[in-house]
Amino acid sequence: MEWHEIRDPKDPELDRLATRHHLHPLHIEDCRHRNQNAKVEESSGYLFAVLKTVEVAADDEVTVKELDMFLGRDFLITVEEPDCAASRSILAQVRAAAAGQRGDQLFYRITDGIVDSYLPVLDHFSEVIDQLEDQVLDRPTSEALSRIFETKRSLILLRRVLVNTRDVAGHLQRTECELIQREMWPFLRDVYDHVARNLDLVEMQRDLLTGSLDIYLSSVANRTNQVMKVLTVLGTIALPALVISSFYGMNVKGLPWIDSPHGMAIVSAVMAVTTVVLLVILRMMRWF
Amino acid sequence: MEWHEIRDPKDPELDRLATRHHLHPLHIEDCRHRNQNAKVEESSGYLFAVLKTVEVAADDEVTVKELDMFLGRDFLITVEEPDCAASRSILAQVRAAAAGQRGDQLFYRITDGIVDSYLPVLDHFSEVIDQLEDQVLDRPTSEALSRIFETKRSLILLRRVLVNTRDVAGHLQRTECELIQREMWPFLRDVYDHVARNLDLVEMQRDLLTGSLDIYLSSVANRTNQVMKVLTVLGTIALPALVISSFYGMNVKGLPWIDSPHGMAIVSAVMAVTTVVLLVILRMMRWF
Amino acid sequence: MEWHEIRDPKDPELDRLATRHHLHPLHIEDCRHRNQNAKVEESSGYLFAVLKTVEVAADDEVTVKELDMFLGRDFLITVEEPDCAASRSILAQVRAAAAGQRGDQLFYRITDGIVDSYLPVLDHFSEVIDQLEDQVLDRPTSEALSRIFETKRSLILLRRVLVNTRDVAGHLQRTECELIQREMWPFLRDVYDHVARNLDLVEMQRDLLTGSLDIYLSSVANRTNQVMKVLTVLGTIALPALVISSFYGMNVKGLPWIDSPHGMAIVSAVMAVTTVVLLVILRMMRWF
Amino acid sequence: MEWHEIRDPKDPELDRLATRHHLHPLHIEDCRHRNQNAKVEESSGYLFAVLKTVEVAADDEVTVKELDMFLGRDFLITVEEPDCAASRSILAQVRAAAAGQRGDQLFYRITDGIVDSYLPVLDHFSEVIDQLEDQVLDRPTSEALSRIFETKRSLILLRRVLVNTRDVAGHLQRTECELIQREMWPFLRDVYDHVARNLDLVEMQRDLLTGSLDIYLSSVANRTNQVMKVLTVLGTIALPALVISSFYGMNVKGLPWIDSPHGMAIVSAVMAVTTVVLLVILRMMRWF
Amino acid sequence: MEWHEIRDPKDPELDRLATRHHLHPLHIEDCRHRNQNAKVEESSGYLFAVLKTVEVAADDEVTVKELDMFLGRDFLITVEEPDCAASRSILAQVRAAAAGQRGDQLFYRITDGIVDSYLPVLDHFSEVIDQLEDQVLDRPTSEALSRIFETKRSLILLRRVLVNTRDVAGHLQRTECELIQREMWPFLRDVYDHVARNLDLVEMQRDLLTGSLDIYLSSVANRTNQVMKVLTVLGTIALPALVISSFYGMNVKGLPWIDSPHGMAIVSAVMAVTTVVLLVILRMMRWF
Repeated sequence: MEWHEIRDPKDPELDRLATRHHLHPLHIEDCRHRNQNAKVEESSGYLFAVLKTVEVAADDEVTVKELDMFLGRDFLITVEEPDCAASRSILAQVRAAAAGQRGDQLFYRITDGIVDSYLPVLDHFSEVIDQLEDQVLDRPTSEALSRIFETKRSLILLRRVLVNTRDVAGHLQRTECELIQREMWPFLRDVYDHVARNLDLVEMQRDLLTGSLDIYLSSVANRTNQVMKVLTVLGTIALPALVISSFYGMNVKGLPWIDSPHGMAIVSAVMAVTTVVLLVILRMMRWF
Repeated sequence: MEWHEIRDPKDPELDRLATRHHLHPLHIEDCRHRNQNAKVEESSGYLFAVLKTVEVAADDEVTVKELDMFLGRDFLITVEEPDCAASRSILAQVRAAAAGQRGDQLFYRITDGIVDSYLPVLDHFSEVIDQLEDQVLDRPTSEALSRIFETKRSLILLRRVLVNTRDVAGHLQRTECELIQREMWPFLRDVYDHVARNLDLVEMQRDLLTGSLDIYLSSVANRTNQVMKVLTVLGTIALPALVISSFYGMNVKGLPWIDSPHGMAIVSAVMAVTTVVLLVILRMMRWF
Repeated sequence: MEWHEIRDPKDPELDRLATRHHLHPLHIEDCRHRNQNAKVEESSGYLFAVLKTVEVAADDEVTVKELDMFLGRDFLITVEEPDCAASRSILAQVRAAAAGQRGDQLFYRITDGIVDSYLPVLDHFSEVIDQLEDQVLDRPTSEALSRIFETKRSLILLRRVLVNTRDVAGHLQRTECELIQREMWPFLRDVYDHVARNLDLVEMQRDLLTGSLDIYLSSVANRTNQVMKVLTVLGTIALPALVISSFYGMNVKGLPWIDSPHGMAIVSAVMAVTTVVLLVILRMMRWF
Repeated sequence: MEWHEIRDPKDPELDRLATRHHLHPLHIEDCRHRNQNAKVEESSGYLFAVLKTVEVAADDEVTVKELDMFLGRDFLITVEEPDCAASRSILAQVRAAAAGQRGDQLFYRITDGIVDSYLPVLDHFSEVIDQLEDQVLDRPTSEALSRIFETKRSLILLRRVLVNTRDVAGHLQRTECELIQREMWPFLRDVYDHVARNLDLVEMQRDLLTGSLDIYLSSVANRTNQVMKVLTVLGTIALPALVISSFYGMNVKGLPWIDSPHGMAIVSAVMAVTTVVLLVILRMMRWF
Repeated sequence: MEWHEIRDPKDPELDRLATRHHLHPLHIEDCRHRNQNAKVEESSGYLFAVLKTVEVAADDEVTVKELDMFLGRDFLITVEEPDCAASRSILAQVRAAAAGQRGDQLFYRITDGIVDSYLPVLDHFSEVIDQLEDQVLDRPTSEALSRIFETKRSLILLRRVLVNTRDVAGHLQRTECELIQREMWPFLRDVYDHVARNLDLVEMQRDLLTGSLDIYLSSVANRTNQVMKVLTVLGTIALPALVISSFYGMNVKGLPWIDSPHGMAIVSAVMAVTTVVLLVILRMMRWF
């Protein structure tokens, strides 16, 4: 059992191995072009799997990288992307306990390691969504809006990775390929369940995120509504006073109480009564 | 027929039973890690089922806990979560009538008990949604908005539990496993129907809840619209009066009727007429 | 051929019949608990069907009741709900023409009668939706909003009944059960087509109702927009006049034309020109 | 080969033919009741097909009519609706070239003619939707809104006809029925492809129409927003002038510059500066 | 192995080839009518494929053209549209390396070339959507709105092409047709994977575009809300001043401080205090 770790797909060692183990040229091309989805293909004499690692940067952006594997009867070839910390750490961990393991066991451990590495990413987004929900309900800013859409974008990407990985796990779980021994089946089913559960979670998160957007719109509509009410109340309080005092500013004859020494008091009373009546009418018509 | 009730998955008794009955290490791990979905798996010599209990706290939050079962030819092992009142009460009830029952009968009774325990939870949310609908139609507050989303979150969780439980029930109903006798089949189909009906109900509730959100937005839009109309009517009433009285406040010469002793009356009449004409025009153009 | 009409599921006669014809206890329980979906189950020696009748009350609310049937080789048992006018009238009609009919023929006629009874309900909602559409387009009130959601609720309920009834009809149409003779197959297919058509109609109605809600929101938004324009036009007309007349109300020196005998006319002309210029600018910028 | 054209389903000739060719009573009922979906049914000795013709009236409303066909070994019976111009013209065309054709060939030609007749209807709606899109983007009126929903209604109806016709064509394409010779298969597959393509188009149109509604709402929201900005700018320009001129209209002592001969000029300058400062602040805070 | 390149479907050479190779008249008609979806059909003796090329014009509009192929045992016929640069360049490229290639190899290379030509189109739209997202978040104009809908229209069209092409590739990948040798299978699966990945990408883009529309609406709502707040703040600042100064402009007796030499200062202070109190109240009630 040989395990070849290729750390850069451009390494000519990969060509040498391809010739020796009769790897299909399309698979070597896949390793080098690297815009594949996760997939698994059975070829004559070996199994070719493309898996995806996921990392979250500080600004919540998701980076997806690739890890390719060729599993043959007596060899395992792993092809990493040059600067992928995630694959590196998973492979190092599996390597540490690799002594005496069969190829299909190593293959399972690497797959399991990758699937496990999705969980912290999902947890991160669960938290982000929780925060966003509280924030938009409390104060719907355009920063929150922009963050909702960045998260949405990440979840779309994440979902795509998980859907394809689930198909890979589903294929492995049902495979009759002789390269994988029967005793590995419950373990591969376990991997499948794990991915399916993660996918479930992503769907739930997408659902909640869509909800956040609805909260956003509803919150903004609600606030606009309340601002309008303030304007209306201000208008209701000010307009009678304005109209009446303008009225008494006119240079016409015959204004009532104009010569009364209590003029100011009477007019002020009229203003107050008009305002109160107006407010009462509005409230009775349930306008605020 | 032995029934082992393990009340804490950390109990070393579970390891002892695992060794004795050849339980698969992945299943024991499932019991202990407990972030599984509901599922059922047939292993050599036994059936492993993960079921979920659901409880609603006072603040409408849903708590999901786990109950695991191993059903073998001559043993039943149940593994509860330490403080789960729901599983405790179901198991106690089944235990009370357990004498002389076969393993598959006990298994059915526990499954049935768990499925029955979902109903009060669903009823609770039906009521919550009814209240919310009335509330948002009447007065769309941001508390209602926040409650709609909490309920939505709970229903998403609940739906996930029910979907998985339905798959478990569907699997059991079709199982050819010799551990479950043929006469149990109608009973297991009954459990399946029950879960499917509950799931139907949750889908309906989600549909209605989405509707509540639409009512919310429509209600707010409607209220904003009405507030705007009040503002417009206020403006329509006040502006002519303001303009005319300001006009008569000017220190210019040649204002009409300014020296007439009926000045005030004439000007007031002009104001009233202008306002009425404006209101009539607006109404004729169907603006309010 | 005996036809037993049980008019109240609590009737002990049902227990007597259950014993005599070996009816499964779960089915008797289904008759009595009555929160079943429509379904059909083949048991040893008989066929058990749960069907649903639908009635619309004056306030558009839908009431769903149950009618259960046991079809055996030489017996038919129908179990009604105590006060269900719909089942009563269908059964009375079938009973009137029952002489000489086989059990499967009666069974078909009852099923056909129930499916036919859905049509007036659907027609009722078609009309309601037509009215609602016109109403919300013309004047979007919150009563219309509330009615849209009541109708939505009814259609969700109706759809659920129809989906399950379609599954029953689909099952009957494909059944190889010897209790139903081959010559009945085209008739059962006809029932299936009928239910499927009804279901189609309900989906269409749901689609249209969702459309009504969109009209509602669009109408309200449109009206708010128009109210805003009125306010803007009012403001545009009034503000120049207000500003200029306030200006001439100031107790400062050097106001132009203040001593001219044509002061009023000049100032009025300035006001009019300013207002017109403002309106022209707004119109040119396509603001209204 | 006889072709019987029945131009009114009430024609007693139909009963005569039914007796002679042993047509199933349910099919004769289908011809007369005419609220069927498009469908095809194989009976002993003949094939019964219900097809739908579609016409658009001047007001964009879609009228769906029915054309029924019975295809037997040596007969073809077509049953039209009394005043259906569409079926009439298709049948006349096929009749003109009918000499020497087999029954299955005529059957294909009629089906093909009906499917071809859907295309102008679809083209009509493509144009309507294009117009609507431009209109709502440019000026979202409530007439456009109302027309969107009428078109939506028509497309829902059209889609239903096409879905059922596609199922008919799919069934015909796969049929092993001896009434249709093998050489007709590519032609029936062609019909199927044609309907499927039309259905695709309707789905696309529905998608675009939903988009139109979104444009409508967005356009209205945008316009409201712009109207609000006009109001705000008007307010910003007028309020400082109003406040300052009212201030100088007060009958209090100590107003600055009140005795200066340049009072008017100074106060006007203050007003202008305040307004400009306010506008600059708003612009700097990116409020408009 | 002969390869006939027909550059105009109206070319009579096509009829000659049809006669010689027994091509089905429906297929020749398909070549000439050209409103087909992408498809592949196995006929006796040859394989008929309709493929689609896609080009983006400067104004983001998508043009779809057709390329038809007949693959026989010893011939390949390609039928282009007259002015289709895309097919021309793909065919020229394949022609250049055609020497010694089998028919199925040429067929694969052309199909692969067409599928590869979709990628730059998808990349173009990815960029467009990125720009649109930033633009609507920053300043939601109606040009952006209009562009969102044009892009949506293009993606709907693109998706339709890709769905059909995927079905073609899926069919080819599974085909047991003897015209395509077994060693080509991995290559055809590769084409299928490629199309499926592209389709995935289009779905993602549609999702993101729908998101852009949501951002648009949310942004507009948010801006309206902020404009309203400005209006409210302006009102809050101006109204107390206006009311109080109008009040002191009245020709009534008994106005306080009216004879005080500090009248102006006192009244100004009252105005300032009232405004501040109002602003504080609004802020405390969290109205802005």
